[in-house]
Amino acid sequence: MIKYNFKDDYSEGCHPAILQKLSETNLKQQNGYGADDYTKQAKLLIQKKIKNHNADIYFVTGGTQANLIIISSILRPHQSVISASSGHINVHEAGSIEAIGHKINAIESPDGKIRIQDIQKVLDEHLTVPHMVKPKLVYISNSTELGTIYKKQELEELYNYCKVKNLYLFLDGARLGSALSTIENDLSLSDVSNLTDIFYIGGTKNGALIGEAIVIKNKILKEDFDFHLKQKGALLSKGRLLGIQFLILFQDDLYLKLAKHANLMSLKIVKAIQQKGYSFLIKPVSNQIFPILPNDLIETLSKKYSFYIWKKIDDENSAIRIITSWATDENIVNKFISKIKA
Amino acid sequence: MIKYNFKDDYSEGCHPAILQKLSETNLKQQNGYGADDYTKQAKLLIQKKIKNHNADIYFVTGGTQANLIIISSILRPHQSVISASSGHINVHEAGSIEAIGHKINAIESPDGKIRIQDIQKVLDEHLTVPHMVKPKLVYISNSTELGTIYKKQELEELYNYCKVKNLYLFLDGARLGSALSTIENDLSLSDVSNLTDIFYIGGTKNGALIGEAIVIKNKILKEDFDFHLKQKGALLSKGRLLGIQFLILFQDDLYLKLAKHANLMSLKIVKAIQQKGYSFLIKPVSNQIFPILPNDLIETLSKKYSFYIWKKIDDENSAIRIITSWATDENIVNKFISKIKA
Amino acid sequence: MIKYNFKDDYSEGCHPAILQKLSETNLKQQNGYGADDYTKQAKLLIQKKIKNHNADIYFVTGGTQANLIIISSILRPHQSVISASSGHINVHEAGSIEAIGHKINAIESPDGKIRIQDIQKVLDEHLTVPHMVKPKLVYISNSTELGTIYKKQELEELYNYCKVKNLYLFLDGARLGSALSTIENDLSLSDVSNLTDIFYIGGTKNGALIGEAIVIKNKILKEDFDFHLKQKGALLSKGRLLGIQFLILFQDDLYLKLAKHANLMSLKIVKAIQQKGYSFLIKPVSNQIFPILPNDLIETLSKKYSFYIWKKIDDENSAIRIITSWATDENIVNKFISKIKA
Amino acid sequence: MIKYNFKDDYSEGCHPAILQKLSETNLKQQNGYGADDYTKQAKLLIQKKIKNHNADIYFVTGGTQANLIIISSILRPHQSVISASSGHINVHEAGSIEAIGHKINAIESPDGKIRIQDIQKVLDEHLTVPHMVKPKLVYISNSTELGTIYKKQELEELYNYCKVKNLYLFLDGARLGSALSTIENDLSLSDVSNLTDIFYIGGTKNGALIGEAIVIKNKILKEDFDFHLKQKGALLSKGRLLGIQFLILFQDDLYLKLAKHANLMSLKIVKAIQQKGYSFLIKPVSNQIFPILPNDLIETLSKKYSFYIWKKIDDENSAIRIITSWATDENIVNKFISKIKA
Repeated sequence: MIKYNFKDDYSEGCHPAILQKLSETNLKQQNGYGADDYTKQAKLLIQKKIKNHNADIYFVTGGTQANLIIISSILRPHQSVISASSGHINVHEAGSIEAIGHKINAIESPDGKIRIQDIQKVLDEHLTVPHMVKPKLVYISNSTELGTIYKKQELEELYNYCKVKNLYLFLDGARLGSALSTIENDLSLSDVSNLTDIFYIGGTKNGALIGEAIVIKNKILKEDFDFHLKQKGALLSKGRLLGIQFLILFQDDLYLKLAKHANLMSLKIVKAIQQKGYSFLIKPVSNQIFPILPNDLIETLSKKYSFYIWKKIDDENSAIRIITSWATDENIVNKFISKIKA
Repeated sequence: MIKYNFKDDYSEGCHPAILQKLSETNLKQQNGYGADDYTKQAKLLIQKKIKNHNADIYFVTGGTQANLIIISSILRPHQSVISASSGHINVHEAGSIEAIGHKINAIESPDGKIRIQDIQKVLDEHLTVPHMVKPKLVYISNSTELGTIYKKQELEELYNYCKVKNLYLFLDGARLGSALSTIENDLSLSDVSNLTDIFYIGGTKNGALIGEAIVIKNKILKEDFDFHLKQKGALLSKGRLLGIQFLILFQDDLYLKLAKHANLMSLKIVKAIQQKGYSFLIKPVSNQIFPILPNDLIETLSKKYSFYIWKKIDDENSAIRIITSWATDENIVNKFISKIKA
Repeated sequence: MIKYNFKDDYSEGCHPAILQKLSETNLKQQNGYGADDYTKQAKLLIQKKIKNHNADIYFVTGGTQANLIIISSILRPHQSVISASSGHINVHEAGSIEAIGHKINAIESPDGKIRIQDIQKVLDEHLTVPHMVKPKLVYISNSTELGTIYKKQELEELYNYCKVKNLYLFLDGARLGSALSTIENDLSLSDVSNLTDIFYIGGTKNGALIGEAIVIKNKILKEDFDFHLKQKGALLSKGRLLGIQFLILFQDDLYLKLAKHANLMSLKIVKAIQQKGYSFLIKPVSNQIFPILPNDLIETLSKKYSFYIWKKIDDENSAIRIITSWATDENIVNKFISKIKA
Repeated sequence: MIKYNFKDDYSEGCHPAILQKLSETNLKQQNGYGADDYTKQAKLLIQKKIKNHNADIYFVTGGTQANLIIISSILRPHQSVISASSGHINVHEAGSIEAIGHKINAIESPDGKIRIQDIQKVLDEHLTVPHMVKPKLVYISNSTELGTIYKKQELEELYNYCKVKNLYLFLDGARLGSALSTIENDLSLSDVSNLTDIFYIGGTKNGALIGEAIVIKNKILKEDFDFHLKQKGALLSKGRLLGIQFLILFQDDLYLKLAKHANLMSLKIVKAIQQKGYSFLIKPVSNQIFPILPNDLIETLSKKYSFYIWKKIDDENSAIRIITSWATDENIVNKFISKIKA
């Protein structure tokens, strides 16, 4: 690739320590299907970080897979899942949730977040029993598709509301590392576990080759979960590949260190943009930012850097999307910034 | 693991050349979702090996995933798939095919293979239109779950019969390497491509960390296949992980070399067992063998080696299953053999 | 029921001529599963009315059943159906379409109708291949859930657009009788057939006990349709029950006569309301009308008549929904009108 | 039809008392979707007959519909249903159970019945967790597809075994009337309710135009059942059609009287066949019988009567299937018998 990529956070491979550990352990015989030593250790490590030794933990290869397995395992045929209309499950998973039989009740949300009044509205609109689906699950992501994050109080409100309304709360953490490492964040990993029924920790976008760690706190949702993994083709015979990665990521807090780097890189860009007096489509918080720039500057930048042009603002300005990652090169960020400042 | 494992062919990681290539390429930015350079090169290499530059090739992480995506992409709701009753899709995939909506017409087969008369019988039993499912796809595996293989003439007969009957033929090649490397084999990889509509080449059980390469020859089956991949959670953002592995496996015929080693190891064990006058439940051909041994010998062997006890034969003898792999240590095989001979 | 029901068009049984025919034919032995004489005659009659003797016709028991079977038979797993957000399949079928695996792309439409620019917008938003569903079918209803109808030119535009875009057009005719019998209508039954790929003629809401007649014009959509009927539990062993009803409804144009009565009754009410100077939420056209009335008048009316209060307009006025049917008693309509005028 | 039909028990319409009641009630306005007075009365009547006023009762239009809704409502995605291989759900429902996502574990059974040792064998074969489906439901029919019936002790054994094994027991009663009216029967309708978790009473094959009454005793299985009905297209807007039929069938024990007639007619034929020294493929018990007759006699009979030739026995004899019904004409049976005796 000739241009430097700010389009996504999965352009590189993985943190070198993972490759190192894969090499060291490569020829040690292990049990298959997640019964290997590394997977066991990784699970213990995550249980420790979330301060819950009763949580069930499973590793899968990607976010769409995690989402569809989790939702398939939870809902009965007539039940639906509530999501922001911009939610990954609603837009970018090729109908995976409908393919397993469930309607998504989509909520319009300018910042990609869901509030309890949004959920209440959906419930109020689904009272014609039994002619309508029965909402049973709330799907949120942190950070969201628009780079925004949930504060602790917001997550508490959602979780408590879901308990009262007999709904489950599921948090898609494909970019949880970035969310928990922003300056504004006040959630710990154990808070996330305490304030959801089920969630996952995204590895693919934060230093792993592939891998998401599903954490199930709610006892009801634990039952037979492994059958669903297997049925959807997610149970790797060489589960060690996933276990080893999370073992490395959760030793010495590497996971959060990598995410902090991603956020730091975007923050540098944010500051440069703000200094030049430009604004943002959505308040920049995590490793996804949406600056509004003059079209001629965008054209200049796009000669050496690749990013998405997100939205036309007016005849002279557009919003672009820039994503940084654990692997983003600070030198290149500096060069990018100097282009902006020039 | 204290005992040496002959239970399966996925106890180790991957061939070291794969880890080497992963390391070399690790920080090179690449496009996501299989649009990376390595995936492109790997596809070209496989097209060359099968002598068909029009075939569509996709990489996925495992066999159950490959099976369910392929079958979901092919069948309409009322159509069914014919399989040996011992077929992986019928027994060991937790109902994955039914979960995507399709009945499996299971055929009893002592050696795990399907013949055209078996298929004809299924067709004959499904004439009560529209009260019954409509068989539309034949699923075979090579090697089979019982370690047996298809000869070229057998595959030709099946394929020609399927064409006449307007059925598709799909070959599960989770252990295709072993099948194509046995002494009895007379099929080339391009024969397999010519004599099926769709098949896949298993990497996980033959030197890869994870990965199966789906090859689509039939033009009808190519349409929109990528949507199915995405919908079932199989489209990796870091597709490079799969591309790199198949690039290495198909350079310098490493794929077949590894499989030959696996077969050689099982052949050594077969000969030792035959020399001692013991027989086999099913004629041993590939890297899965089913010797019938005295129970006391089984007990002795099981102290240092792990394997499945497959079936009680009589009060004094049982059949066991032994699997060798690309990584099986010849020194340990020699020790194992000496125990048998002792 | 103490109050007279204006809530729906299925409060009564069926037109007496149907019961008469059921009695006359009751003990004549007939073939099962729609191979009876009456079903054959009814199909011929409908083919004649639509002026297409090649159309395939099937009878099912209800609208949700018709919708889910038709859509299941048409779409492959990754394909979606476009509908108005108020569409019956999107709101009032308990997730039936998602349960058979398909996403509904919902279009906001104040009058319940879809225009080609709405469809174009959906197509434009689904270009990220293969991460999104692929819209393949357009679902409309005539009359719509809001009582509005499609004019011939509108249907032509939709159908031609769908042909250009390689989409199928499916018309839900649960209330087709009423639509085709309004004063404003300029569509014939054969126009509906010519300008759609598949549609159905609703019997349940227009004189039948149960029954919808599915008409398939598009050759591609005919293939194996009967299997889908059977698989979804819609193939009645006593298919005669459905055939006899449509035989009666399509003899002597009874179907349209009954619908005209329904429309005439609503028109009488519309005129009375207009004379009193009240307005409507949506322009009244067919047998579903949405007058906006003062709350005290609504309260008075609701003592003797039942209807839905549809929407609060302001502190003093609300929109109600009134539905008339083939069985609506004109004397009671007159009394209802006099209450309004009083 | 020129020949008299002994092929099935759905060649005629319905018992005249049903048409009479439909006519009497035809124009009385009623609530839709099963909230009508007749449905309520019919439910009370059935609750009285099964001696359980807590049972939930729902009416649907046919057997395949009943089966798929019941099974869809009970099973989670990874769970399977155990059935005789000749079971209606396994053979004659066009893959309806797989289409809702579930594997059928088929048991070979010469008489169509299931014993606890058959179930135990299935459970024993499904211990490889989580690679296999999890059997959770046992499906039986009474009478079976082969006309055999369950005795009280057999049903008790099955039910008690299912309780111990944490399985649900579901009885398909499409021909329950005939089963409970045979000479050998010792089950009452309340026994059937006591000894199953859920079952249905078939109306279509015993005097109704259409209709099966689903009875849910197990509290767990009652939850949200109506949503499943609606989602699968089974909730009739004119539910009165079903309610009225069951109201008539369960007044004055008409249901059992009709079934007794069907059995009596088959018994007459059985006796005639036995007197002539012919045997049966399966011991004749209910309204489906399988006599083995000389081919020339079969040919003679088939000139005036239609029935299925079920199975070739030897060069000179074949088994045929004869079905009698509530509407079978005794005079014609007598003529048929005299042909046999001649």
